[in-house]
Amino acid sequence: MPVRLVQSTASAYSYPLLIKQLLLTPLATVPEREITYQGKVRYTYRTLRERIGRLASALAGIGVQAGQTVAMMDWDSHRYLEAFFAVPMMGAILQTVNVRLSPEQILYTLNHAGADVLVVNSEFFPILAQIAPRLTTVRSIVFITDEPCMPAAPVEACGDYETLLAQASPDYEFPDFDENAQATTFYTTGTTGDPKGVYFSHRQLVLHTLGCAAAFGGASAQGHVHREDVYMPMTPMFHVHAWGFPYLATMMGLKQVYPGRYQPELICRLVTQEKVSFSHCVPTILHMILTHPQAQTADFSGWKILIGGSALPEAMAISAQKRGIDLFTGYGMSETCPVLTIAHLEQADLERPLAEQAVIRAKTGRPLPLVDLRVVDKHMQDVVHDGRASGEVIVRSPWLTQAYLADPVASEQLWAGGYLHTADIGNINPAGYLKVTDRVKDIIKTGGEWTSSLELEDIIAKHEAVHEVAVVGIPDDKWGERPLALVLLKPDHVGQISEHVLRNYAAHAIEAAGVSRYGVLLQVRFVKTLVKTSVGKMNKRLMRADPAALCL
Amino acid sequence: MPVRLVQSTASAYSYPLLIKQLLLTPLATVPEREITYQGKVRYTYRTLRERIGRLASALAGIGVQAGQTVAMMDWDSHRYLEAFFAVPMMGAILQTVNVRLSPEQILYTLNHAGADVLVVNSEFFPILAQIAPRLTTVRSIVFITDEPCMPAAPVEACGDYETLLAQASPDYEFPDFDENAQATTFYTTGTTGDPKGVYFSHRQLVLHTLGCAAAFGGASAQGHVHREDVYMPMTPMFHVHAWGFPYLATMMGLKQVYPGRYQPELICRLVTQEKVSFSHCVPTILHMILTHPQAQTADFSGWKILIGGSALPEAMAISAQKRGIDLFTGYGMSETCPVLTIAHLEQADLERPLAEQAVIRAKTGRPLPLVDLRVVDKHMQDVVHDGRASGEVIVRSPWLTQAYLADPVASEQLWAGGYLHTADIGNINPAGYLKVTDRVKDIIKTGGEWTSSLELEDIIAKHEAVHEVAVVGIPDDKWGERPLALVLLKPDHVGQISEHVLRNYAAHAIEAAGVSRYGVLLQVRFVKTLVKTSVGKMNKRLMRADPAALCL
Repeated sequence: MPVRLVQSTASAYSYPLLIKQLLLTPLATVPEREITYQGKVRYTYRTLRERIGRLASALAGIGVQAGQTVAMMDWDSHRYLEAFFAVPMMGAILQTVNVRLSPEQILYTLNHAGADVLVVNSEFFPILAQIAPRLTTVRSIVFITDEPCMPAAPVEACGDYETLLAQASPDYEFPDFDENAQATTFYTTGTTGDPKGVYFSHRQLVLHTLGCAAAFGGASAQGHVHREDVYMPMTPMFHVHAWGFPYLATMMGLKQVYPGRYQPELICRLVTQEKVSFSHCVPTILHMILTHPQAQTADFSGWKILIGGSALPEAMAISAQKRGIDLFTGYGMSETCPVLTIAHLEQADLERPLAEQAVIRAKTGRPLPLVDLRVVDKHMQDVVHDGRASGEVIVRSPWLTQAYLADPVASEQLWAGGYLHTADIGNINPAGYLKVTDRVKDIIKTGGEWTSSLELEDIIAKHEAVHEVAVVGIPDDKWGERPLALVLLKPDHVGQISEHVLRNYAAHAIEAAGVSRYGVLLQVRFVKTLVKTSVGKMNKRLMRADPAALCL
Repeated sequence: MPVRLVQSTASAYSYPLLIKQLLLTPLATVPEREITYQGKVRYTYRTLRERIGRLASALAGIGVQAGQTVAMMDWDSHRYLEAFFAVPMMGAILQTVNVRLSPEQILYTLNHAGADVLVVNSEFFPILAQIAPRLTTVRSIVFITDEPCMPAAPVEACGDYETLLAQASPDYEFPDFDENAQATTFYTTGTTGDPKGVYFSHRQLVLHTLGCAAAFGGASAQGHVHREDVYMPMTPMFHVHAWGFPYLATMMGLKQVYPGRYQPELICRLVTQEKVSFSHCVPTILHMILTHPQAQTADFSGWKILIGGSALPEAMAISAQKRGIDLFTGYGMSETCPVLTIAHLEQADLERPLAEQAVIRAKTGRPLPLVDLRVVDKHMQDVVHDGRASGEVIVRSPWLTQAYLADPVASEQLWAGGYLHTADIGNINPAGYLKVTDRVKDIIKTGGEWTSSLELEDIIAKHEAVHEVAVVGIPDDKWGERPLALVLLKPDHVGQISEHVLRNYAAHAIEAAGVSRYGVLLQVRFVKTLVKTSVGKMNKRLMRADPAALCL
């Protein structure tokens, strides 16, 4: 009698993808490897696992149950890493609070997410004092401090983190449950309106970790992240789980270094002292570190840094490479967990001059395994992959937020046509590299031509006098829009160059590069500062609204 | 109003894990990279994708629907690779037929699996002639041939593979469906009773591919498989999907080389001509290749070979290393998709002498990410990880067969206590390496002491006169069992050494190594051949039953 096979293989023995499983390999292979906080706290993976158990027991002790939300306000620390695991492993949800938002916005996100418990560093007591009376759902608060003694607090806490852990059992039994259970939530730092909540499940975080491991591991020449690397984040843990890399570093069993805030002196010291070899950050942070006096003598050779969040200026790629840093870009956003692409160079590319390598390193990359990434016109038809034809980047992958929390209108726009719409404009070249050229809303429409503000910035930034630049479109009766470059000069160039001279240089270079036929319409204004978002991205909405307010 | 978050994030936008997604990255990044069959057929990933579409259209044309089974009888080829993708991508099930089984066993597996369509290479027409009248479920047959013209066939076919593809459309629309849909099935080559069917879903094959990519990619020193590698299987594609590596090679976009049968001359030629750098095989195959005259002058340097299926003799690891081959072991079985562990060396290990490295390379490795691997006593309590205490290896991971097809009794034993029981005996050392020492049924029980037959073989195989050796337990009134070594001498040592001399050498070495206190009980017999299974493993059941029949 032949057996007609059933189609679904799901069974009682199916293995849900759960965050706790990321701990299996490091505990089985490198239990003695180190994790350090600023070089001050230092312990092993074995201790990490024990403290994860203690944290879960402590949270259960103050009433945290599966499905409830534990919000965290801290800088990058071993405690944050413990929460990355313990909270979701209990079946609860970790809310990573963007501590760079305004107190009112922080209040909004805590109430909107319905946070039950708040774990907060004493450094944020002033914010806590402002918002505590208006927290509608938080019923327990846990304090953390880096001070020798707990500072005076504005509200009552149910305990401090270290005391609670010391009193709790390490033997928490982490259960199996549905891999689609929500694990984390946080709020995007969009430049318009209230922050919007995104969220990810255990399954999504495990698959993002595996996808990143496959991409980094497959690198043949540069950007190969392997088990002997030493990891240090330089994108905050509150921001898309530091791009998911603490999960990756843990699964791979890397030595891990948590720096707290990104103070250049400390970063330089940790990189050399702890032999950090893999980090990630936005260009602004790297710029801040590389231009710091302490960085001038530090040995950065072999430091792999993935750049994301904003376009990497080619000039920065070259100067970092000259310091021995292996710099390359990735692409993603809060809604995408975040990594979608990485710009790994091929072996042959490494034989090219630095300037040519920089062009590739500054591209936003090629898709990770399983990522279905397209660039489409307004009818959702794919554009030609010739490196010129541009359109919106849309994507499917196993690790995309399924909606904005409690925002059906925005969610429907996000997922129009069954693909997640990034609102980024880009093109794909024949080698498969995505180049993100602009945000949909930042594109400059001049005389019927669309010009990427990022491409204009890249050209202007190459001038030796320019420290930073933001290009925005301003209304123009004749041309619709024309580009305005807001330029922050390097200190030693102030007074040495005129707006007119820089403008003529840039206008010529823009037309010569074929980026726009209308380079001549460029205006250049020197500014005393550029406006950025809470995570260091250019806030073009604000700059566009009142550029005059910034000018010298 | 706070939002109380729902727990499950599954939505209409959830992304099922499907085999078709493994094609996304190579097509987006290396569409022109090559796939070759024996160096005779050569085409690009773009063509692979087109032919996958054509194959699906052709199969649909002969009535194949989702849930039906397409069985394949072929050696390792581009056609097999096409079927690895096209059949499951349609929602149908690919049965990979072990062509080394007896015709009666092949008939049994086709009928037991309920195969609807059979795709068969003309080389197997003699088998087909024997079984065709008794095929109870196959309703269509497709022929393949490597000959210039199709040989005379014993039955009617609905067409030949290349003609059907040429006439079919490449534009098959591969649908999304449940990731738990069954994708493949095949039958284990167990040495007792009828073959047992195992099966894997899309989800499991995708996760196995990601897990392997993470493990290979994380290697810091040796065994790093990356995007510039050239892949060639040396474990048959019918056997656990060539250990899943054609899926891995495709997802990573590697150049791929399919050799048909494993003829040493052809293998040597392909390795040098196509610059093969990553393969995998059982020790027997490597032994066959390395001892072939053509291999003596071939350049094998940089060839990474993962060894599995049987224990790797340390002597073989050393001799391969001397040829520049990067040899290391993995562990798994048909029931586990198969890879569970890989023995990657650490950077520091590579500075040790070859003999010390060989000890690590011959261990069966450390668990892949997400793999929950334990060694337990009969009460399912973990043994100490001291490299000595042994027990049965049990495992959970995202890629284990959920049952034996239509065999509830065996399935229940397989999954006793919620873990898959491998029936292998092993130990784990403090560095986390699993050492598989024996099959549960091959362990030798002497005077109350358990001795691993594999460890005895490893010691005896180090003698210069020994070509191959199998140790089995034979009944003994006084000791319960005593070990019998069946030894195949190297041709030039036949008549140069006596059983008695080798036995004295081995008995002494066994006691000196501390493997057994009862080395003196060893018996040695020279044989004219050793009995192996269809995939080249020692068939100890048969040898134990009648060792005298083998002896010289």
